[in-house]
Amino acid sequence: MFFQGTAGGPERLHALLPTAELFDCSEPSRWADLLRETRPEILVTSWSTPALPIDTSGVALVCHVGGTVRNLIPRPLIERGLLVTNWGDSVSEGLAEAALFHALSALRRGQYFGDLMHREKGWSEFPSGTKTLFEKRVGIHGFGAAARNLVRLLAPFRVEISAYSAGVPAGLFQEAGVRQCQSLADLFASSEVLFELEGLTPATRGVVNREILERLPPDAVFVNVARGALIDEAAAAELATAGRIRLALDVFACEPLSIDSPLRSLAAATLTPHLGSPTDDRLAHCGDLALANLQRFRAGQPLDSVVSLEIYDRST
Amino acid sequence: MFFQGTAGGPERLHALLPTAELFDCSEPSRWADLLRETRPEILVTSWSTPALPIDTSGVALVCHVGGTVRNLIPRPLIERGLLVTNWGDSVSEGLAEAALFHALSALRRGQYFGDLMHREKGWSEFPSGTKTLFEKRVGIHGFGAAARNLVRLLAPFRVEISAYSAGVPAGLFQEAGVRQCQSLADLFASSEVLFELEGLTPATRGVVNREILERLPPDAVFVNVARGALIDEAAAAELATAGRIRLALDVFACEPLSIDSPLRSLAAATLTPHLGSPTDDRLAHCGDLALANLQRFRAGQPLDSVVSLEIYDRST
Repeated sequence: MFFQGTAGGPERLHALLPTAELFDCSEPSRWADLLRETRPEILVTSWSTPALPIDTSGVALVCHVGGTVRNLIPRPLIERGLLVTNWGDSVSEGLAEAALFHALSALRRGQYFGDLMHREKGWSEFPSGTKTLFEKRVGIHGFGAAARNLVRLLAPFRVEISAYSAGVPAGLFQEAGVRQCQSLADLFASSEVLFELEGLTPATRGVVNREILERLPPDAVFVNVARGALIDEAAAAELATAGRIRLALDVFACEPLSIDSPLRSLAAATLTPHLGSPTDDRLAHCGDLALANLQRFRAGQPLDSVVSLEIYDRST
Repeated sequence: MFFQGTAGGPERLHALLPTAELFDCSEPSRWADLLRETRPEILVTSWSTPALPIDTSGVALVCHVGGTVRNLIPRPLIERGLLVTNWGDSVSEGLAEAALFHALSALRRGQYFGDLMHREKGWSEFPSGTKTLFEKRVGIHGFGAAARNLVRLLAPFRVEISAYSAGVPAGLFQEAGVRQCQSLADLFASSEVLFELEGLTPATRGVVNREILERLPPDAVFVNVARGALIDEAAAAELATAGRIRLALDVFACEPLSIDSPLRSLAAATLTPHLGSPTDDRLAHCGDLALANLQRFRAGQPLDSVVSLEIYDRST
């Protein structure tokens, strides 16, 4: 048995798996050799773990303390029966919450007014340009776990929700009570608040281009807590600078965001440094989930948060 | 018939009530005389309307395009049967939304990170101190319409909600599925996120004093979108400066907030200039509600958003 230390909590892991070994991720070149030499049954992995070689064999479980495994595990390994778990749904709840926070901030011009109060030492007798989320027409691009969790958070706001994600079966939208749009262009054209929650894949990279962004109604809110490379960031910045749309961005095409990005000068934009999820207070929960899965695996019980081929294909 | 112009939309009012007269609020000294001379049946009032004299007679309906009427209408007038309506529940929904926005911002350090991105041109590789609202212990001080709307907005977050408001019958808490605390001190001691939504009355002014604030658990979030004079603002600022609690304030004891208030220097605090509710986009809705009530009144139909004595007594 064998595990990675970056996930934290090596002590608790050792208590559960006394024969476990720790791999130092700062030496990725040794990775393939080590896998061949030690032939681990279980891998506990995290963000900095190098990708598994496609000829990896003997591993029964990859317990990934993170979200997407696309850059870690070649698809054929899962096809051949490799069991993979990740940190599952609790993290996508946090991401949905981040999306809601960003939307509310953009609607109320939270960062603008915060700056006015803190930096400008100002006040506004009649704060203008504030909006509520209640009864707005909402669009969601993407329909994975975070999007479905967002639908639940939005329920009390009596919003009309439409969504679009290529290849998602119609039944999933119906189940969530969401109108399925037939195209990305239609989705953007009908959304006063647009949430970007699509997975980043070769097919979705840059799909939210200038033409799509220009479909948004005047003064629409565009929230991105998914991946920056989904959108034409320069076009988004231009539209926001011209006052055509409101931006609320947690993710950027290139992170850290460059110092001279025009986004930084947009007083009305809500910007945060990729803090979507998990929040600090949930990291321990992610570790607990991984430990519980390891215990279940050893007890021969069904695991939580298994990454199926369907989930794999839809993830970022 | 007679009405005030400050509510906006005088043209639409005139269409509905062709004999209406407009009173110029910049001459409050003429108010009492005018009421005596014109003996209006209906008054349409708003924020700047001077208080009604206690001997006002002949008025059947005050249609107030605003929230509380405590500073406008002496209680005995309602006791004697004066019908009063206000802008009702849609505004308290917006206030609940403002409270939620403030809580999410404080939990995620939204204004701190926004400032980092905008003003400091910085980034944070591992944004620290972020928290989710999911599964937190939440307290609400006050249990009027905004508080009950907030309970609905919080439902998807699986929070445990406790509340306290002196004089509110136990049944109201039970109906909302909320645990009723027996004292303000208990409420604060058990709340990781505390929402201040109490009405400001002589009995509640300053009731959230230093001792009560010190009951909050370490790193608790304190949100105030109600009235600044409910709390000991200096004590709150001191606790936040010491890193004991997180502050999210939309209202202040003295507004505009003074330029040298220590609150303005709290990088971690979420501050906004009393933009709770209604948001800009809902002002028209408030006007529509008032017009609909005027139409119902003339048709002899029951009115929306009637201010009962119970509502009057509980309002700010």
